[in-house]
Amino acid sequence: MAPKWAIVVHGGAGVIERAHLKPEQEQAYRAAMAKVTEAGAEVLRSGGLALDACETAVRLLEDDPLFNAGRGAVFTAEGRNELDAAIMDGRTLAAGAVAGVTRARHPISLARAVMERSGHVMLIGQGADDFAADQNLELAEPFHFHTARRWRSLTNFLKAENLPIPPEPVGADRPDPALGLAHDEGKHGTVGVVALDIRGDVAAATSTGGTTGKRWGRVGDSPLIGAGTYASNAGCAVSATGTGEFFIRLTVARDISALVELKGMGLQQACDEVIQKRLTAMGGDGGVIAVAPDGQLAWSYNTSGMYRARAAEGQPLSVHIYKDEF
Amino acid sequence: MAPKWAIVVHGGAGVIERAHLKPEQEQAYRAAMAKVTEAGAEVLRSGGLALDACETAVRLLEDDPLFNAGRGAVFTAEGRNELDAAIMDGRTLAAGAVAGVTRARHPISLARAVMERSGHVMLIGQGADDFAADQNLELAEPFHFHTARRWRSLTNFLKAENLPIPPEPVGADRPDPALGLAHDEGKHGTVGVVALDIRGDVAAATSTGGTTGKRWGRVGDSPLIGAGTYASNAGCAVSATGTGEFFIRLTVARDISALVELKGMGLQQACDEVIQKRLTAMGGDGGVIAVAPDGQLAWSYNTSGMYRARAAEGQPLSVHIYKDEF
Repeated sequence: MAPKWAIVVHGGAGVIERAHLKPEQEQAYRAAMAKVTEAGAEVLRSGGLALDACETAVRLLEDDPLFNAGRGAVFTAEGRNELDAAIMDGRTLAAGAVAGVTRARHPISLARAVMERSGHVMLIGQGADDFAADQNLELAEPFHFHTARRWRSLTNFLKAENLPIPPEPVGADRPDPALGLAHDEGKHGTVGVVALDIRGDVAAATSTGGTTGKRWGRVGDSPLIGAGTYASNAGCAVSATGTGEFFIRLTVARDISALVELKGMGLQQACDEVIQKRLTAMGGDGGVIAVAPDGQLAWSYNTSGMYRARAAEGQPLSVHIYKDEF
Repeated sequence: MAPKWAIVVHGGAGVIERAHLKPEQEQAYRAAMAKVTEAGAEVLRSGGLALDACETAVRLLEDDPLFNAGRGAVFTAEGRNELDAAIMDGRTLAAGAVAGVTRARHPISLARAVMERSGHVMLIGQGADDFAADQNLELAEPFHFHTARRWRSLTNFLKAENLPIPPEPVGADRPDPALGLAHDEGKHGTVGVVALDIRGDVAAATSTGGTTGKRWGRVGDSPLIGAGTYASNAGCAVSATGTGEFFIRLTVARDISALVELKGMGLQQACDEVIQKRLTAMGGDGGVIAVAPDGQLAWSYNTSGMYRARAAEGQPLSVHIYKDEF
């Protein structure tokens, strides 16, 4: 029987292989994914909105330095954490998105405030930071987002590219609880959640720091409605992670929903069509998670691994990392 | 017989009614639309790329103070011209976009440089401005974009909203050749071009200043791939203009192409389905122009007028403004 509520969570896709993760790293990721998924599941189990389940789970991922979103985000070439996020409500197609923001502790909650309180869908840069302050969202100092391992990734990247190394942010000398546990997933770090609530409504949310050493105000697919994030009760909810440029060009999230909506494809088939065929043919990589109003759940990725977890009414919570875990 | 090449141009939709335009205003818009369309048509007639026809025509629109793009763009609440643009190549789904840029004289050419030379699809804000300088694109001082009538629209808007009026940009006292000719189309100013070349390839390009008095780094649909701009040889090329937030939520441009691609709809029917039905039902307004690889041309809008023009192999160039001009 189709579950009445369901949630799928991802923590990024990339080169994530059994041989490369130490047991304590693997354990840390599994525990984090389970905790986040259970928090979202609890919202749904107790009758909450899919939208709230998505926001709740993404906020936890943004606080966890293991993942490339919020605290633990990668750095730009200028040594800053410029964050992107989007959220979408499948009931109404209401959506909110921010790109290049630096002040809100939880970019996903800023995206939701944009959706509900700005009259707009997308705000960027300094203006979006100002909106966060106006709306009394919880703000954070730049060093809140800082982790030692991401700074090391940045300096390694900049040295390899022969680019100047910026000064490390003030206040960055705090202990990093993820030190030694975090695994570098390569260029595809993003977090995302899709959910179905007991009313039959779906929602999607995605948050990311983008790519290490990004320059020129680069924005990937995460905050772009239809690219990295999409939700419609007429189709499905999707959150993506991967080489963002390809996901934008292929309008990955919207296309998966369109295949369900216009072609009547099953959700897994639609995800595989876009990820295994179109994305792979174009040379992009990464993955998606998806849920449909009728209780179908799916994920699809063409990398060696993706941090992912699922839970649904009547089904146990499960966490998966590698390709051989189905 | 289907034309081998074709071009459709829009200069924005909105409250544009016969009773409100003076004869000399109407004449100015018709002449500008004809000139721009002919310039794009000439690229196609002589065997050029759809992509080049789109860029050529949009650059002219960006230089013309009658339209809300480049010179003549509307102002933000802070008294700045922050410009958005996107371009997409239907052959490869390659795309380039910029949002919140202030320095490139031709934002559409900056979007094309992003597509061809950055390795990215979307750049925003100061970073995108830096990229424009790096790429030796033609830069302009802020006053280049300034026109007296848009400044007046801003101050009227800010007074009505009880917001502070910023100082007028330095160098803004130049004569405005569009003074007395420009018509205020309301909140929907955008320019866009779609083209089909003799190889059978389509492309789309859109450029805008956004909305008068915009705050918080608001970005509309124009620079978002799949929302205001989309092109695929598998479907069609689309450029939109209207209340951008609705166009983002409905992924208008991608959805029109998806209806052609997945449902086999005719181009006019697909445009009408999304604009007359979905957009109207949601409470949004505006319009689109579209062209398909097989030579179908279409436009659809739910406002009282849209500046629009078309030309195709074997068909005379025609310019249309009001609803009664078919």
